[in-house]
Amino acid sequence: MPRVPDSAVRRLSLYVRCLEGIDTAATSTISSRDLATAAGTTAAQVRKDLSRFGSFGKRGLGYPVDPLLERLRTILGLNAEWPVMVVGAGRIGSALHAYPYFRERGFRIVAVLDDDPVKVGSEWNGTTVEHVDQMEAIICDRGVKLLVLAVPAPAASGVALRAARAGIRGILNFAPARLEVPDEVVVNDVNLALEMEALAFALSR
Amino acid sequence: MPRVPDSAVRRLSLYVRCLEGIDTAATSTISSRDLATAAGTTAAQVRKDLSRFGSFGKRGLGYPVDPLLERLRTILGLNAEWPVMVVGAGRIGSALHAYPYFRERGFRIVAVLDDDPVKVGSEWNGTTVEHVDQMEAIICDRGVKLLVLAVPAPAASGVALRAARAGIRGILNFAPARLEVPDEVVVNDVNLALEMEALAFALSR
Repeated sequence: MPRVPDSAVRRLSLYVRCLEGIDTAATSTISSRDLATAAGTTAAQVRKDLSRFGSFGKRGLGYPVDPLLERLRTILGLNAEWPVMVVGAGRIGSALHAYPYFRERGFRIVAVLDDDPVKVGSEWNGTTVEHVDQMEAIICDRGVKLLVLAVPAPAASGVALRAARAGIRGILNFAPARLEVPDEVVVNDVNLALEMEALAFALSR
Repeated sequence: MPRVPDSAVRRLSLYVRCLEGIDTAATSTISSRDLATAAGTTAAQVRKDLSRFGSFGKRGLGYPVDPLLERLRTILGLNAEWPVMVVGAGRIGSALHAYPYFRERGFRIVAVLDDDPVKVGSEWNGTTVEHVDQMEAIICDRGVKLLVLAVPAPAASGVALRAARAGIRGILNFAPARLEVPDEVVVNDVNLALEMEALAFALSR
């Protein structure tokens, strides 16, 4: 299948959120225009995004809400439950562990790891912080494919590579470092300083 | 000046990081190819990105590292110090307050606000959490233009609008909500659940 741009994937996620907000007892279809308005894009963009995945709805009748929602959830992998490992039991790791919107979407944090003996063994709302030496065994035993990487930059690539070798296939990377991982591993960088810089740039002009 | 795409702005930030890592005692110029390799892009992309802002370096000689770095810092607004307000003294707010890479880039958190009486008055490593009722006065008194919004989704738009009216011009928004703010305010959404979904999507295919 042709590659779907990241921006389109993010819009699909937004469509899911918009569709979830619709009371289908009152209205069972939605037009591309209304969906576009709710998601902050254009009707043409909605039609283009959805047409990548085949045909939804009939021209002039709008999209049937429930089937479209179900279909988008399947496309995005949201009908599965995803066990997630967090490496780095610092403040960002802690924030993500407590983040309600992860669990809501089927992302379940099944392990939090660190190499700091002070943190290892501590309890995080039902999760015991484990030692990063156990990483490979935990990935394998708990069938983890997704990793949240929240370690300091110098340690990031080493941890990522070990995780990839043990079976991790997607990494949400908070370390401001470019990860060297095998091609089959998808890395999504969240660089918060970069996001602030983009704001500063906009304000400087 | 023509609009610069977000992706280009993020690459400029990456170029800054790469250039900062160069020992200019040993090498005073860098080719577009070497800069591209370090930043994970192509030489043609580097040349295109830099040419937006005028002429840097001479064909065949590479870019002079120090002047290029200085120029990029100015373009990105990194030579200024930016006072930042955090609204929402939860775990994400706390993680950002402690985030070393913000201060390093000139983003100085000058206020942390919340409406929870338990949190107001508490000390965060030298910053006293203040009540969100004080928001407008603090924005004005401390000349704050940048806001980190880390409140629950239902409260986000109300806080953002008040902040915009008081003078905020850039918002890093962690609330999974679309903010309704005046056009002159730049919003950068960081939706961590969406980032996880993009990974799940890639792994589902």
